[in-house]
Amino acid sequence: MPLNVKNEKKRVAKIYAVGVGPGDPELLTRKAERIIRTVPVICTPTGTADASSYALSIVEEFIDRSRQEVLVQVFPMRKDQEGLDEFWEKAADEVAERIGQGLDVAFITIGDPFLYSTFLYLYRIFRKRYSHIPIEVVPGITSVGAASVAAGLPLGMASDRIAILPTTYEDAELRKTFREFDTVVLMKVNRVFDRVYALLRELGLDKNAAFVRRVGSSDEEVVFDLATLVGQKLDYLSLLIVKK
Amino acid sequence: MPLNVKNEKKRVAKIYAVGVGPGDPELLTRKAERIIRTVPVICTPTGTADASSYALSIVEEFIDRSRQEVLVQVFPMRKDQEGLDEFWEKAADEVAERIGQGLDVAFITIGDPFLYSTFLYLYRIFRKRYSHIPIEVVPGITSVGAASVAAGLPLGMASDRIAILPTTYEDAELRKTFREFDTVVLMKVNRVFDRVYALLRELGLDKNAAFVRRVGSSDEEVVFDLATLVGQKLDYLSLLIVKK
Repeated sequence: MPLNVKNEKKRVAKIYAVGVGPGDPELLTRKAERIIRTVPVICTPTGTADASSYALSIVEEFIDRSRQEVLVQVFPMRKDQEGLDEFWEKAADEVAERIGQGLDVAFITIGDPFLYSTFLYLYRIFRKRYSHIPIEVVPGITSVGAASVAAGLPLGMASDRIAILPTTYEDAELRKTFREFDTVVLMKVNRVFDRVYALLRELGLDKNAAFVRRVGSSDEEVVFDLATLVGQKLDYLSLLIVKK
Repeated sequence: MPLNVKNEKKRVAKIYAVGVGPGDPELLTRKAERIIRTVPVICTPTGTADASSYALSIVEEFIDRSRQEVLVQVFPMRKDQEGLDEFWEKAADEVAERIGQGLDVAFITIGDPFLYSTFLYLYRIFRKRYSHIPIEVVPGITSVGAASVAAGLPLGMASDRIAILPTTYEDAELRKTFREFDTVVLMKVNRVFDRVYALLRELGLDKNAAFVRRVGSSDEEVVFDLATLVGQKLDYLSLLIVKK
């Protein structure tokens, strides 16, 4: 996207997609901190889920509301974000309006913007409708990385094979993945935990796993005795690491 | 590990395993920066590979050599680190000596300490021989995350399945993984690139991939036209992201 800088006095504003990590403000990158402290507009999605306002709470200490706008964008809470295009398009319009005024916008997202983040829905809309607006993505510490550290279970060493799965899978498929990979990470495992636990028992892997909830936050919890979780209502921000 | 703080005036020293990210000093976490600026001893592995002194070069600007010791530990360069136990044991002894003097030691590693890092070999030795020494792992931005951002290829969205593979695999196994996963990341692909490229051509996936070398450094390069890489000597710090 060539910018005719000579004829264009006004600086072209930019969207930063900033990963703010799993919860601990110290796990932000230096780059994320610098951008959040300096941009005039900080944009954060919210819904009925805690997950959304959570991103804002992680970076609150870096924001000066007397000179920075915090633009909270509400989305209906759904199992996934497909079918919410009208909401994302409205959100994109709001961001584009600030960009048009020459204001940089930081869109914050927990974890990393390129790993299962809600930003990816907005990214798709921007690419389609506002392809002239530059987007810079700032990677963040993922919940996967932080959870492996919290549980003391390395994700991969030497020739280990790693699989990261969302929660949409069948037992047969999952069984095969457990057979073929050394480390399997199951994201948002709360919805399917009992079914997964039964499978781990069957495969003799139930002692080789850690359930991690709200990693990086003050509510962080690591559970190795998976039997205690069966039948419980589990946290939305949870994952399971299974090591062979 | 209970510490009898009442009877023990001397603070117990600690090992920090600090991920310093893929190369850009701004991609360190705030926590990594704080620890590197304050610990009396910074420990870094080196060999004939660039990869090792590379970690030190990333954090050089945070180190004050007038009050901090930089302990460089040399390991022979091998295809992998198995069989180098005597070197790791000597390194562990050197670290344990500083810990015994009450000095905190930060062991720095590129990327994340829990994802294919050389620290994991040292970790194993510490767990076995110095299990009384506390180890705190500080996660870092991985080359996988940074490369996906550099290439503009999100690792996973919604129900995407992700596989991360080292370079030890057979064509049949790799073909199956490409079939079953939405995103496949091949680490250290330099050694097997031509073979992988032939397979991608066969599967019609050669246009859906990005080769990323030395992500986050000033030598970072992203190549989408994979054909140009065939027959070339490729960088050690390189990976391939393949998206369906």
